[in-house]
Amino acid sequence: MIETRPVTPPPDPSASHVYTLRCRIADAPDISQKLSAAIAAVPGHLGAVAPVPELPDPQIRDITIYLYDKNRFETLKNAVVAIAGVEIIAITDEVLEIHRRGAIDIVSRAPLRTQLDLRMVYTPGVASVCQEIEKNPDLAWQYTGICDRVAIVTNGTAILGLGDIGPLAGLPVMEGKAAIMAEFVQISGVPILIDTKDPDAFVDTVLAIASGFGAIQLEDVAAPQCFEIEEKLISKLNIPVFHDDQHGTATIVLAAVSSALRQTAKAPQDCSALVLGAGAAGCAVSKLLLEYGIGDIVLYDSKGPIYEGRKEAMNPYKHQMARITNKKNQKCSFPEAFTGKDIFIGLSRPNMVTQDMIRAMNPDPIVFPLSNPVGEISKAQALEAGAAITADGRDINNALAYPGIFRGALDARAAEINLAMKIAAAEQIASLAPENQLLPDILDRKVHRRVADAVADAWRKQHS
Amino acid sequence: MIETRPVTPPPDPSASHVYTLRCRIADAPDISQKLSAAIAAVPGHLGAVAPVPELPDPQIRDITIYLYDKNRFETLKNAVVAIAGVEIIAITDEVLEIHRRGAIDIVSRAPLRTQLDLRMVYTPGVASVCQEIEKNPDLAWQYTGICDRVAIVTNGTAILGLGDIGPLAGLPVMEGKAAIMAEFVQISGVPILIDTKDPDAFVDTVLAIASGFGAIQLEDVAAPQCFEIEEKLISKLNIPVFHDDQHGTATIVLAAVSSALRQTAKAPQDCSALVLGAGAAGCAVSKLLLEYGIGDIVLYDSKGPIYEGRKEAMNPYKHQMARITNKKNQKCSFPEAFTGKDIFIGLSRPNMVTQDMIRAMNPDPIVFPLSNPVGEISKAQALEAGAAITADGRDINNALAYPGIFRGALDARAAEINLAMKIAAAEQIASLAPENQLLPDILDRKVHRRVADAVADAWRKQHS
Repeated sequence: MIETRPVTPPPDPSASHVYTLRCRIADAPDISQKLSAAIAAVPGHLGAVAPVPELPDPQIRDITIYLYDKNRFETLKNAVVAIAGVEIIAITDEVLEIHRRGAIDIVSRAPLRTQLDLRMVYTPGVASVCQEIEKNPDLAWQYTGICDRVAIVTNGTAILGLGDIGPLAGLPVMEGKAAIMAEFVQISGVPILIDTKDPDAFVDTVLAIASGFGAIQLEDVAAPQCFEIEEKLISKLNIPVFHDDQHGTATIVLAAVSSALRQTAKAPQDCSALVLGAGAAGCAVSKLLLEYGIGDIVLYDSKGPIYEGRKEAMNPYKHQMARITNKKNQKCSFPEAFTGKDIFIGLSRPNMVTQDMIRAMNPDPIVFPLSNPVGEISKAQALEAGAAITADGRDINNALAYPGIFRGALDARAAEINLAMKIAAAEQIASLAPENQLLPDILDRKVHRRVADAVADAWRKQHS
Repeated sequence: MIETRPVTPPPDPSASHVYTLRCRIADAPDISQKLSAAIAAVPGHLGAVAPVPELPDPQIRDITIYLYDKNRFETLKNAVVAIAGVEIIAITDEVLEIHRRGAIDIVSRAPLRTQLDLRMVYTPGVASVCQEIEKNPDLAWQYTGICDRVAIVTNGTAILGLGDIGPLAGLPVMEGKAAIMAEFVQISGVPILIDTKDPDAFVDTVLAIASGFGAIQLEDVAAPQCFEIEEKLISKLNIPVFHDDQHGTATIVLAAVSSALRQTAKAPQDCSALVLGAGAAGCAVSKLLLEYGIGDIVLYDSKGPIYEGRKEAMNPYKHQMARITNKKNQKCSFPEAFTGKDIFIGLSRPNMVTQDMIRAMNPDPIVFPLSNPVGEISKAQALEAGAAITADGRDINNALAYPGIFRGALDARAAEINLAMKIAAAEQIASLAPENQLLPDILDRKVHRRVADAVADAWRKQHS
């Protein structure tokens, strides 16, 4: 395993583009102030300024810089170069560096230092393990890694907010998810890239390789194919199949909504919600919020509200959504849709929402503009327009949900991840939020453990 | 990662079944001698006798026992129980224990301790890595784990010497191989179980998922389907596809033959070899030995010698073998086949060869009875019958070949593992054997590094 080199965190965690500029810096008393000011103007943050141990020249320093927007890097470079006495020698993109050779490694649990180690892990000893499993296939759960192994499967058709960039370009995301599962809940997530947009070929491939895994995480597969793929896999496999963009997002949004309702002392059945975006996430979030008890939801896509009888741009999944949402059969256009709503959830595109729309909502509205990396409206604007509680895609991260959900499902050897398990996860997450915070700390491993236990308990209660 | 507990090695490394008996042992002065004698008679070895830290009773001890044959365990247990003053409280099969929850784990290379770690490894930072790869797919080799990731693919049709036990029961072998690759050459080997015996469905599945890997290791797929599968995959993929049972075995056998020829001062072109077993390994070994320059080879299967014109139990692959082997078109039955041969290589079944057969060979024959776990003839019998050099499947282990071969192919970003690379690996392995030994120490990581460099150099020489 190759160690990645540590990078000091920035003062503001939303600056997530990190560069190291190796510079030659003349000995001038005010140069560090000039650097700091030039970088702040980009805008960015100056991090550590450190000597380079392997280079004896004391004028050569490695400068860490944090940016909010990668596109501002050229501006940053020009600003640094413009300072008299500073010369850039080399540039390192630390995000690329942390992904160099991938974010994950496979390691052996046994050290293989002796012939005996080798003969127990491999031939001839391993033959007896194979024979035990041949006699009783159920023992594979004990004597192989299946109990901890999840396939993270994508065809690259909806990678983050980047769209259909193909499975290879999506691999860093799959590796990132695997790194999170490994660190947070000791799950071995295996990225599997499937080179097809045909749902049936996708399903056949997953079915062919599924016996080596304890669960399947579908990831960044575009709607509506993702619904068909998930349905078929669930019907044919007796291990959990979980499309994170749907259910991971729905679970963490429900956790945030449940936490926000508690803080604003609102009852779910009295609330009316507007969900903008009828893709995988929007549909799943709407379904889970309804199951949880939210009074009514109106779901909007780019053609307007979804309602029974709408003809334009429908598919079987939108028809299903039309049946369960929009009780009053609301057909008004998007700006008017905010009137009378208590909750707004954006899962669409940046800057779709104005302050006037927020002002039209019921008093003390809950506003979650979750579009990534830029929300439907900024949190500051939402608060100014009267939002009681607001959170964006940086605050509401499904990585707080899926690690514990998968860990719990595997711990209970569940055959599926069902509604009760998702609601148990969401309620557990909400219950762990510190006072006056919407959600608990994603980096707290104990939180993920508690979510896992809640999910496992939910399954066991249904099957005891 | 769960640590596995260390087991002290036995005095004789061929005893690879290890048990821990937790016993209550009365304080009698000769009890340890009695234990030792009873276990030796099974036959087995008494290892450590250690107190159990968590149990205060000084009479309770954990006894480590090594067996040659797992089937003798009942006899062992009875022998121990028969000793007055010894009572067995619990039994642990240490081979099963070392495989508990699998032999491998996936770990994150970054620690994910801060929000910044998370934002660099996962969203939003990871998006910039995806975009770099989208612009230039070649960068996936640098910024994902593909450069170290090998799919270890099986359908379970020929697991070790156990036969068609299915992919699930074969998974411990795939994990064992992955553990070896991780420990010896820092490759991430991903076990992939494919639930089909249909070669075309197998090929389609591998093609669908291949873009996430830097190479494909086919493993324990039965002949003749393995030939067809390998051919099709090689023709359709531009990454290495390597069936270890063929080429890993062929490489390590060639290394051993080359080393043995040097020790017996024989020239390859003057040698005639008999290869018993025309499965995946037998065919590949014969081909590679011929390419290396062995004078002639006669290949035997259960129906007798393979020759041009034979009608019984042939297939296209055996026809191909008939064309390249057996120059004199030898048709004699198996016992007579040894006359005039310099080298015997057994890749068939236990106890197929008698001492008289060895005696019929040319002077100072090289005898490699490689059937596992029991050879075609024992090494002791072969030596007694006049073998100059003999080695069995315990001595000639393809785990000395495939880790370095894959590491070298990935290091050079080779599109295939070709003849020159296999011969380079075999010659490097042979050259690293200490004086008077056939092969170098499989546990020496430097050996695998040297093999990798030789393989990478061979590819680069062909493509510079």
